Formats: sequence, structure tokens, C-alpha cells
Amino acid sequence: MRPVFVAGAGMIPFERQDENTLGDILAGAGLAALDDVDLGKHEVGAVYLGNMASGLFNHQVSVASALVDRLALIPAAAERIENGPASGGSAVKNGVLAVASGYYDVVLVVGGEKMRDVIGPKATDIVAAMTHPHAEYIYGLTLPAMAGMFTRLYMEKYGVTREHLAMVAIKNQENGITNPYAHIQMKITMEGILEHPQSHINSPIIADPLHLYDCCPVSDGGAAVVLVSEEIAKTLKKPMVQIAGFGQATDTHTLAEREDPTELKAVRLAAVQAFSRAGLKPKDIDVAELHDAFTILEIAESEQAGFFKMGEGAKAVERGDTRIGGKLPINPSGGLKARGHPVGATGVAQIVDLVWQLRGEAGENQVEGAKNGFSLNFGGFGNNVLAFVLRRIS
Amino acid sequence: MRPVFVAGAGMIPFERQDENTLGDILAGAGLAALDDVDLGKHEVGAVYLGNMASGLFNHQVSVASALVDRLALIPAAAERIENGPASGGSAVKNGVLAVASGYYDVVLVVGGEKMRDVIGPKATDIVAAMTHPHAEYIYGLTLPAMAGMFTRLYMEKYGVTREHLAMVAIKNQENGITNPYAHIQMKITMEGILEHPQSHINSPIIADPLHLYDCCPVSDGGAAVVLVSEEIAKTLKKPMVQIAGFGQATDTHTLAEREDPTELKAVRLAAVQAFSRAGLKPKDIDVAELHDAFTILEIAESEQAGFFKMGEGAKAVERGDTRIGGKLPINPSGGLKARGHPVGATGVAQIVDLVWQLRGEAGENQVEGAKNGFSLNFGGFGNNVLAFVLRRIS
Repeated sequence: MRPVFVAGAGMIPFERQDENTLGDILAGAGLAALDDVDLGKHEVGAVYLGNMASGLFNHQVSVASALVDRLALIPAAAERIENGPASGGSAVKNGVLAVASGYYDVVLVVGGEKMRDVIGPKATDIVAAMTHPHAEYIYGLTLPAMAGMFTRLYMEKYGVTREHLAMVAIKNQENGITNPYAHIQMKITMEGILEHPQSHINSPIIADPLHLYDCCPVSDGGAAVVLVSEEIAKTLKKPMVQIAGFGQATDTHTLAEREDPTELKAVRLAAVQAFSRAGLKPKDIDVAELHDAFTILEIAESEQAGFFKMGEGAKAVERGDTRIGGKLPINPSGGLKARGHPVGATGVAQIVDLVWQLRGEAGENQVEGAKNGFSLNFGGFGNNVLAFVLRRIS
Repeated sequence: MRPVFVAGAGMIPFERQDENTLGDILAGAGLAALDDVDLGKHEVGAVYLGNMASGLFNHQVSVASALVDRLALIPAAAERIENGPASGGSAVKNGVLAVASGYYDVVLVVGGEKMRDVIGPKATDIVAAMTHPHAEYIYGLTLPAMAGMFTRLYMEKYGVTREHLAMVAIKNQENGITNPYAHIQMKITMEGILEHPQSHINSPIIADPLHLYDCCPVSDGGAAVVLVSEEIAKTLKKPMVQIAGFGQATDTHTLAEREDPTELKAVRLAAVQAFSRAGLKPKDIDVAELHDAFTILEIAESEQAGFFKMGEGAKAVERGDTRIGGKLPINPSGGLKARGHPVGATGVAQIVDLVWQLRGEAGENQVEGAKNGFSLNFGGFGNNVLAFVLRRIS
């Protein structure tokens, strides 16, 4: 396999984008990444689009072909990659393989979703279309409901408290305030969401024990990266950031089939594969972007990806280890909680944020001297997970 | 790039499958391909699923993850690849790159669609979701309407007649009768569909000049192939069939943007790339599976992919050159016209049919001594096209 590098990275703000179509969002993200790199004579050979549900959210398919036309990249190859909330990570993976194979030298990977074309609970229904149609969906199971059950079990088994969950939310919201691309830019406090007499109004229950501030928002947005071969990367001016390793693993499609529902086997395995390919260990990582669609997931993933022992993730949050300036900053971007979670965009946005960190371009959210980064994109309820290790070379 | 071989190939009948869910169809196709090869100790590393619109047809996403569980292939990687009617071809391409890169040694590619979960004109509406949302879809443009306009222009420019179109339909329906996987197994005649006093009832106008028998049916179905490295292919008992080359090209998303709407630039370019990679020429091909969603497309593609000069495709049909036993048999399977066109399945089914031809396993539809095969999978209305050249090595 040829080594693969991120030559360009870009994003558009994650927010409610009523004025923009899905096509506008994807093109905006693609252009942001293309504008970040001077490719000279090299042309984009293929476009990979990470998007979960353009059909259900926007009544459109073949969106990747439309994007190629919009970006004036005809006759570049193009397809849409769908893997639920890990669609972005899957698009990056296939872009990496396309360059690694030697078939393409330059690939554009765009991730994006326009979720707010539908109204209110319809978005939760569309997201629930990733559950098992006969074993889960028909019983009304939604992702917040699955996350609520998972949270209860995890709290009981590992002594995680409501306060620990709130600490994750408070940290990520704080990081979001200084991230110009973040959807939610608002300070929250323990007092306001847990102790205030009005806390049941400030942060109402969504799926017990998860409250509003334990859940990511429903966002519109897009992110993109330009992947290139080593030969091309060497000719560019920016620091060289390599996709040093990736891993991907699946687990039972339904949550009920798992022997121990608190164990996220696909997270473990994807992380092990990514570290093994990169020749690095969790202790070598300087900054991580994890998939905190629900606060419990940041804690669970930080343990099961190997950064902390089981039961130690919540304590690490309590000690401030995962804040910017801590031992292992997690989600300095604000994560899904604050940056937002336009599903297909997330896995690509995580890579963009890591690239900015490793290049020293993360502004107020910079983790000083970061050289190695890790991202985790969580599909389904952990039934299809991707992990990436990124490394600054020069 | 490492050479990539098709080790296993399988299909389930294309038909109206009211008793089977989308999951049943995909699993059936996957098992058919896995049953066709004894992989011994080698495990499937990744699954690529070609499917156009599981969201709109079946209100499901993350179907690739569900398939991995259903086939007991956990923790194999998995994602869905969507490229409109070329979703199957795109899935094969990404499977090829995954093996070619050296990251995976064994990849399962499944293509499938369950279109008959929706009723009547709704299927045509969902297929039309591949058109441009603001420039085409909102004006009520459908794929049959686009094909009708294209047919009229092509007939005028190249002297193609209604009889030529009918000859394509008659040939492909005849081939379908002896293909046990074909959806439509019924003999039609020139007299019955063009000359009979009841011909306007037998084959009514769909989109002038296209009549019913110029259009493929709306089908449920699935097909699958197992792709492996050369090292593994050499250990297997069946004849070695290599994916000797592929090409993929895009064109303007809307038909109206093209200088000459009768020119299918993406077909030309994809074919040129595939032949170039394979080191073969059109004259070296013994059997071709083309994308005859409408009869005119078989004629147009046979010219623009390089098999006949412009304007000669219709004459070749008239001479019988494209029948089984002719100089270049096209769609011995019956093509989309008779085998059917469950959109995501088609690009994979074409590869399965070619593998059976090159192995000498095509039964009554066998093209004697076929060694090199060609397939063309046409996305959108020619805005994203894939071509493959397959070669029997041993």
C-alpha cells in the first residue's frame, strides 16, 4: 500500500442552513478543501461523498455525480458512501484505499448532510432507519432510546454519575465557543443544567438518564479533505499529515444480540487495527476526536479505544485530563455535542479538525505541539466503527 | 496495483419478490457468491454493498452493517455504495480497489434492490430522484422521459428506426427465456409489438417514441461476487477470471447542459480507460453486457464504447451480429430488458453473467469459447458510467 497524505482540509459552519440546499453544502465543503491546497497540474481523479440519507432527508440520490459537476471536476469518478453515522469515516477510508492502490493520485472526500429539510421528530425517525427494521425499528426504538439504555447500564457497571456526563457536555460546549464552525456556541454550567430549580426545563429528559445537554444537536453542514500520494504531498508547502493507519470493524446489528451491551467490540477492534497499522500506541496520541453523539459515548470510547482503563474514563474527565491543556485533550473542536452532527459530515470533520491540530492551525482550540491524532466515527449503535490515526511527518 | 480476480459469483432470480425483505434479497445473493467458492482459511475482510435507494424504497439505511451480521461475517468492514443505477458497478470498483491496495485479500461485493416495496408510479418517482432537483426533477422529468427525448434525437441523427429498437427488445427477451434468473421470460415478436392491430395495447407508448417493450421492468433482485488477490485465486479450482481493467467517468449532471445530447462522453471515456488498463481493444471482446434500461441505450453504448462505428450499431443488430452466435453477442443474459433492473444489483449482475460466460457456465446462453468480456453500467442519464473488462487467465 502506498502511504496517503491529507493535502487540503476545509469545512463550512455546522448550523441550521435554511438558505442552502444539500448541493450548496457539499459544494461549499468541497471548495473549502480544494482552496486549502495548490494542486498545480494535478487533477482530482475521484470524489468520495459521505452522506447517510440524501434520499430520506432531501429526496435525492446520485448526489455525488451532481457534486462533481458543481465543482467542475468532470470527468472525475464519483460515488456516495453510506454507513449510517459513520458515512464520513467510510468515505475517508475508501478515498485512502483509492490512493493507496495507486489507481488515483488525488482524491477529494466530502462529507455532508442537510437534516433540517425535514421537520421536528421526522429527523429522529430517519436516523432510526439505521436500526433493525423488524427487531428494533417497528417497536419505536430510536437512537436516543438506545443510548439511554446503554447509559444506564454503563453508569451502574462503572460508577459513572450524572455529574460525569454533565462534565463532558460542559467541556465540549466550552470548546465549541471558540470554534467558529461549531453549531452550538453557548456556555453551560453544572449549576444551570443539574442543580438549578429550573434544570428540568433548562435540560429536560430526552431518554432517561440522558437529558437535552447529553445529546448532540440536529445540524446541517459539510467537511472535506483532499488526499494525495506521497510524491505529490512532498511538493506541497503545508506540513505533511499522513493517514498513518485506519481500522474498521462491525458488531451485531441489534444491540440486544450482544452478550455484554456495555462492551463496544467494534470500537476496540477498529482502534487496535488503526494503531497497529500506524505503529503507534494510545499513549502516543496527543489529541483525539471521539464520537460523542451522547455524552456517555465519549467516556465509553475513551476507555474502549485504549486511552483509559475501564471505569477510568469518567475520572479522567473529572480530573480535567481531557480538556485542552490536559494530558489527552478529547474533542477540542467541541465534538458532535457542540460542533454538531450532520451525520455524513462528522467522520470527515473529525479528520479536518485533526489536520488543523497537527498543522498548528486550530486557533484558540490548539493543542500545543500536537503531532499524532486519533479519530473515532461510530456507526449505528456501535455496529460499524472506523478509527483513524493521523501523524505529522514534517 | 495488485491484480484482482473474481473467485465466486452468484445471483438470485430477478423478479417481484413480495415474500422477501431487502435483507433477504441481499443475504441470498451474498450466500450464492460465497457458496460458489471454497475460501478455506481465508476470511472476508470487507463487504461492499451496491444499492441505490434503500432509504426511499425500504425506509432503511446502514443496510451494509445489517448484511454483515446476517451473513455471519462480523467483524468484516462494510459500507453501502450509491451511484444511482451504477451503484452496483461502483461497488465492484471499490471492492477491486480494496483488494488492489493490498489492505484486504478477500472482499464480498453484493448488489441489490427491492423496488416493489412501493406501489406503481412511486417507483418512477424514486428513480427520478437521481435527476437534478431544481433543473429537472421539479419539472416532472423522469428517466423514461429523458430516454424518449434521447431516442428521438438518436433516431433522427443516425437513421435508427422503431424496428431497430424492437429488434433489440426481441433479441434480449429471447435470451431471457433461457436465463433462469431473468425477470421477464416471454417471447415477443415484431408482428406482435409493432404490426398487430392491437400493438398499441400490447406495447403502449411510455414516452414517445419508446413503447412498453423498449423499457426494462421494475424488479427486485440481487447479485454478488467474491473478489480475491492473485495469491488466493491461484489456489482455487475454478478458471481464473481477472478484472483486467475498469474505467469510470462523469458527465454533466443535467442532460440539457450537453453540447450534443446524443454523445455519451462518459461512456466513451469509461470504455477507453477500461480497455487501456486491460491492454485490450474492443475487437478482442467476445461477449458484452450493456446497460439496456431502454432499447436505444444498447445501440448507443455499443457504438460509443467502440464496438461499432457511429450509426452502425443498429445495422449490427439488424444483421444479427449481437445475437448469441453472432460476431459480438450483446446481453446474452437478456440484459436489463429481460433479466430486469433492480437498480443496485445490475452492475454486479453484469459481472456475474460475464464470469459465468468466461468460465463456460452460462448454460443455454453460452457464447462459445468466450475469453474476454466487457460490461457497462450507466448511472443517471449517462452522468456517471463504469466499464469493466474481464479476462479468463487459465
